[in-house]
Amino acid sequence: MGLIIQKYGGTSVGDIERIRNVARRVIETKGGGNQVVVVVSAMAGETDRLLDLAHQITKAPNERELDVIVSTGEQVSIGLLSLAIQEMGHKAISFMGFQVGIQTDSAHTKARITGIDAERVRQALKEGAIAIVAGFQGITAEEDVTTLGRGGSDLTGVAMAAALNAEVCEIYTDVEGVYTADPNIVPEARKLSRISYEEMLEMASLGAKVLQSRSVEFAKNHGVPIHVRSSFNNNPGTMVVKEDKEMEGVVVSGVTYNKNEAKISIMRVPDKPGIAAKLFGAVAKENIVIDMIIQNISQDGHTDISFTVAKPDLRKVLQIMDGVAKEIGAEKVISDEKIAKVSLVGVGMRSHSGVASAMFDCLGREGINIQMISTSEIKISCVIDSKYTELAVRALHDAFKLGEGGISPEA
Amino acid sequence: MGLIIQKYGGTSVGDIERIRNVARRVIETKGGGNQVVVVVSAMAGETDRLLDLAHQITKAPNERELDVIVSTGEQVSIGLLSLAIQEMGHKAISFMGFQVGIQTDSAHTKARITGIDAERVRQALKEGAIAIVAGFQGITAEEDVTTLGRGGSDLTGVAMAAALNAEVCEIYTDVEGVYTADPNIVPEARKLSRISYEEMLEMASLGAKVLQSRSVEFAKNHGVPIHVRSSFNNNPGTMVVKEDKEMEGVVVSGVTYNKNEAKISIMRVPDKPGIAAKLFGAVAKENIVIDMIIQNISQDGHTDISFTVAKPDLRKVLQIMDGVAKEIGAEKVISDEKIAKVSLVGVGMRSHSGVASAMFDCLGREGINIQMISTSEIKISCVIDSKYTELAVRALHDAFKLGEGGISPEA
Repeated sequence: MGLIIQKYGGTSVGDIERIRNVARRVIETKGGGNQVVVVVSAMAGETDRLLDLAHQITKAPNERELDVIVSTGEQVSIGLLSLAIQEMGHKAISFMGFQVGIQTDSAHTKARITGIDAERVRQALKEGAIAIVAGFQGITAEEDVTTLGRGGSDLTGVAMAAALNAEVCEIYTDVEGVYTADPNIVPEARKLSRISYEEMLEMASLGAKVLQSRSVEFAKNHGVPIHVRSSFNNNPGTMVVKEDKEMEGVVVSGVTYNKNEAKISIMRVPDKPGIAAKLFGAVAKENIVIDMIIQNISQDGHTDISFTVAKPDLRKVLQIMDGVAKEIGAEKVISDEKIAKVSLVGVGMRSHSGVASAMFDCLGREGINIQMISTSEIKISCVIDSKYTELAVRALHDAFKLGEGGISPEA
Repeated sequence: MGLIIQKYGGTSVGDIERIRNVARRVIETKGGGNQVVVVVSAMAGETDRLLDLAHQITKAPNERELDVIVSTGEQVSIGLLSLAIQEMGHKAISFMGFQVGIQTDSAHTKARITGIDAERVRQALKEGAIAIVAGFQGITAEEDVTTLGRGGSDLTGVAMAAALNAEVCEIYTDVEGVYTADPNIVPEARKLSRISYEEMLEMASLGAKVLQSRSVEFAKNHGVPIHVRSSFNNNPGTMVVKEDKEMEGVVVSGVTYNKNEAKISIMRVPDKPGIAAKLFGAVAKENIVIDMIIQNISQDGHTDISFTVAKPDLRKVLQIMDGVAKEIGAEKVISDEKIAKVSLVGVGMRSHSGVASAMFDCLGREGINIQMISTSEIKISCVIDSKYTELAVRALHDAFKLGEGGISPEA
């Protein structure tokens, strides 16, 4: 008898009828001879409603109190799902974060899990019940309620799977799995049956919204297999698992894009030691994440520095940069919001060197200018004019034959 | 420096603006040199919304899960009030039932408080913060969330006052205090400045909705003075305190009524030992509370038995009675929903014997027929035709001079 963790997002439990659907699916899984632990998010829209109440009171709510308020969303969901399963004649019991000992640090609104006790879940399973656990929430050593940040319920699911040594953590969502590209842009995009943690991590950080990076990281560290699948049908989705030989047989697994970044350029910066530290230190102090950084070759003792940040951070970064630019004697600061980052991801790149040039080649053939480039072991990203995004994604998907299973390193 | 507990009901925290009003009043109390612990209910309408979600899933929800769902209402309130107080520049911290150790038994939806630790509240007060505690909820020894039943937040307030040895528990509501009669019916009704626990208990059980019986009982047992007052103005309300000599100086403190009961009569019951036990045992088994019981004098070995129950229980009780009546050979079962119970309450009755006859006299003069009578040491209740309720209340209020301070036993 296997132990399966199933995590359902806010859309899957968005109303009473959908909660009943989830109950049916959970019961079906149990009927197949499995023990089942279900992790649920708040009903779609509920978290926003609660945040709005808090923001009506203050623009900068205390994060401990915000967690008290927002964590009620998941609490309602677990109770309702438990009732729905019981109404269908099966044994179910709900648990909040504190009841199953989901210990976290005290970084409210973005807490990290430090340990899971899960004793009550084990007990419930032993008694033949379906255990329903509130996603997104935990408890500090001082018994304060915390939340785990965006996508936190995924993390709860994976962490429960690790704690209970589950067979698999099924993440139910409104897409069927991980695709070679966004199917809305590339009709030929193919659902991947398997993908490695590393590739999934790159995809998540590059803009694919299926899984949140932290939960993939956690799954990777604890060897938890994740099954991303749809809550609206029974099709198999995509398994996110440890890399194996077979995966390296394909150069590129997928192409992704991200339109949510903006580019900032500091022009004619005096090329002296310590300048970069000054520039980016000021941004880091505000907890703003910088993505790509490019520094041009120095001319006449001056250089241009460009970098990208998430669009919501742009205004704040520009404010900071205007001050710093004056201080270091740079000429001016310019920004561009009309950019997109297009990326290729694949563990096969490790053993194949021609991917970058093939990518540049493909974009060049389409007349698309590359503004910035960044690479890692298993991905290549290019920043381009955002109006070419769809064209670039389609062309790359085609060039690397992703719709047909991809090209092998030997090809 | 005194310690004051303030409890605010759902109407008082019904929207963001009202929450801000509560915040101001709490801060004002603290500014007066007091330590303040605030107990809040769910925002008006929220508990019903949550109950409705549960009832959309099942007609008979599991009570443990119901408590998980419903207790979120108070959790949202404490977070919002804490934010509002902080926004006004004062230190505040919210606590759920489990965080301040409000231990209860495991009778979900109507749990009894078995103990309060309150250590975190003490700590918060010591640090100069205003402590905000979720009303209505507690936690079992097994760490399951419970709720305390109707009016449970009053109970939380009184229990916190007892645990912390507070000066007073202020219960804020939408009326100004306890009146000699319902002011909507009797314009001359007078606000009582003081009333004894015993009188308050009788009034609560007789239909006055200001305070719930269990919280008065708890206050009485622990000697907690309760101050019932309005959250919409600063007028002093009514103190509910230990009985003293002065209180006995008035025969009747107030007149109340209750239209929420129905009368059931079992006609021509064979008058044999054990019959009453059979009748009422069947009802007790369903946890239905019976109020007044009357058995007529036996004729030809048969008797009529009448009793009252809360209207929502009527249908169920009739079902039970139809079965039992047949079994014991009674002639028939009839019921009447058009009744009202009108009552006089006053500790002065203990030392004065003429109250009952004065009451019957008064009702008789108005041509009102008395269907049932029940008395205790400090109250007399008469069941009458409900259409005479207002007439009876006004006539009694007048006859016992309640608008003018009442009549003394020597009068």
